[in-house]
Amino acid sequence: MTSAPAAPPVRAYRRLGVEERRAQLLGAALTLFAHRAPDDVSIDEVAVAAGVSRPLVYRYFPGGRQQLYEAALGSAAEQLTLCFAEPAAGPPTERVSRVLDRYLGFVDQHDAGFSALLRGGSVAETSRTSAIVDGVRRAAAEQILLHLGRGTGPGQEPAGPRLRMMVKTWIAAVEAASLIWLDEDKQPAAPDLRGWLVDHLIALLTATAASDDETAAVVAELLGQETSEGPAGRLAARVLPVAGRAAHLLPQD
Amino acid sequence: MTSAPAAPPVRAYRRLGVEERRAQLLGAALTLFAHRAPDDVSIDEVAVAAGVSRPLVYRYFPGGRQQLYEAALGSAAEQLTLCFAEPAAGPPTERVSRVLDRYLGFVDQHDAGFSALLRGGSVAETSRTSAIVDGVRRAAAEQILLHLGRGTGPGQEPAGPRLRMMVKTWIAAVEAASLIWLDEDKQPAAPDLRGWLVDHLIALLTATAASDDETAAVVAELLGQETSEGPAGRLAARVLPVAGRAAHLLPQD
Repeated sequence: MTSAPAAPPVRAYRRLGVEERRAQLLGAALTLFAHRAPDDVSIDEVAVAAGVSRPLVYRYFPGGRQQLYEAALGSAAEQLTLCFAEPAAGPPTERVSRVLDRYLGFVDQHDAGFSALLRGGSVAETSRTSAIVDGVRRAAAEQILLHLGRGTGPGQEPAGPRLRMMVKTWIAAVEAASLIWLDEDKQPAAPDLRGWLVDHLIALLTATAASDDETAAVVAELLGQETSEGPAGRLAARVLPVAGRAAHLLPQD
Repeated sequence: MTSAPAAPPVRAYRRLGVEERRAQLLGAALTLFAHRAPDDVSIDEVAVAAGVSRPLVYRYFPGGRQQLYEAALGSAAEQLTLCFAEPAAGPPTERVSRVLDRYLGFVDQHDAGFSALLRGGSVAETSRTSAIVDGVRRAAAEQILLHLGRGTGPGQEPAGPRLRMMVKTWIAAVEAASLIWLDEDKQPAAPDLRGWLVDHLIALLTATAASDDETAAVVAELLGQETSEGPAGRLAARVLPVAGRAAHLLPQD
């Protein structure tokens, strides 16, 4: 008799298996954490969103909001890492464009949570959450290096320090651009931002090739796979008038 | 009689004025926080380093380590912001090179503290420390925009959104490169890293000019101030062989 008020959640609990229930709670948490800062989401809200009781949430996540946040973050990190996967075929700048389209789609869907996580200063931020974010950054760097012909698979030559630094700084620039994009009400349109981020990578590769032999070899190989209609060709054509103004800087011979 | 053991710090306290004492405690704290993560520094160590008693440190910083950390961070932020100041004369890439030399000197002198602060996940990180770091980033962006001819002073045209985003993403890339540099035992040598970061900015300006009219106008103005012996000229000469391999991407006419 006294257990009557708790009956619906208990029955719901019995209907779903442990893994399914956990996934359902995580899904509800992820939706809440996606659009708000972690400090603004309560266990009660997660319970309501999942249609279960507060004690049931605690049964699965005894550490409360922090544990739920870290689990939701881990699940979001897995999703994001899946976005990076792209077959190593076709012009590399077009592959990177597709990866960036999926990445910006993820940023769009997890806007406030993405900002709060990367901006820092939240009490939910710990060495564990930082490690999750670092893991995603590492996965992103490995994927980009793969498309530059420097994957870490068997038979592949690992990238040298300058090329690795170049890729990681570009990823930091992409993250910074994503945060600014969210601050500016997702302006410019995502395809525009993606185009500029790809231009950024091409420019950075070109400038780095000017001082690093490995990057020069990578760029030579990449250029052979690019077309005049793709991102590299379009940038080359648009850069010509800019470069024309730099003629006075070149050695006269 | 009973006050005898406390006498030396009390005497020291009397010898220095309030502001001097505060500055001395901050200096001691800053030295400790520069080379270690904030969580690893205790008030006792600050007291020993400053040659005062623990209660005296608390008299000035009743909030203990957190308050001392935030004050030290504020003082470091002021120092770093001063590094950015550079007269608006001479080739802009050489001005940016001098700013970067001072910035990398600061990173070198505050290595572990710089890493801990920007890596996140420390209990000492709060919305106040994030605000201090953001303030430094904003100051850095304003200074770079000033040297691009888009300062915020009277009579100056404020930068448009694409140029602002470009500068902020480059600053994020510089931060990321600094953290990698610290991780890799400060390799390559600082002037090498600075040279590459300047190349990065020039490449990014060039690529952004290819799609943004304002940046194109800024680059045209900047190029007129550059010389063939400066960073822009040296990069242009080194990029020629790389660009030569992209001939097949250009429209044939």
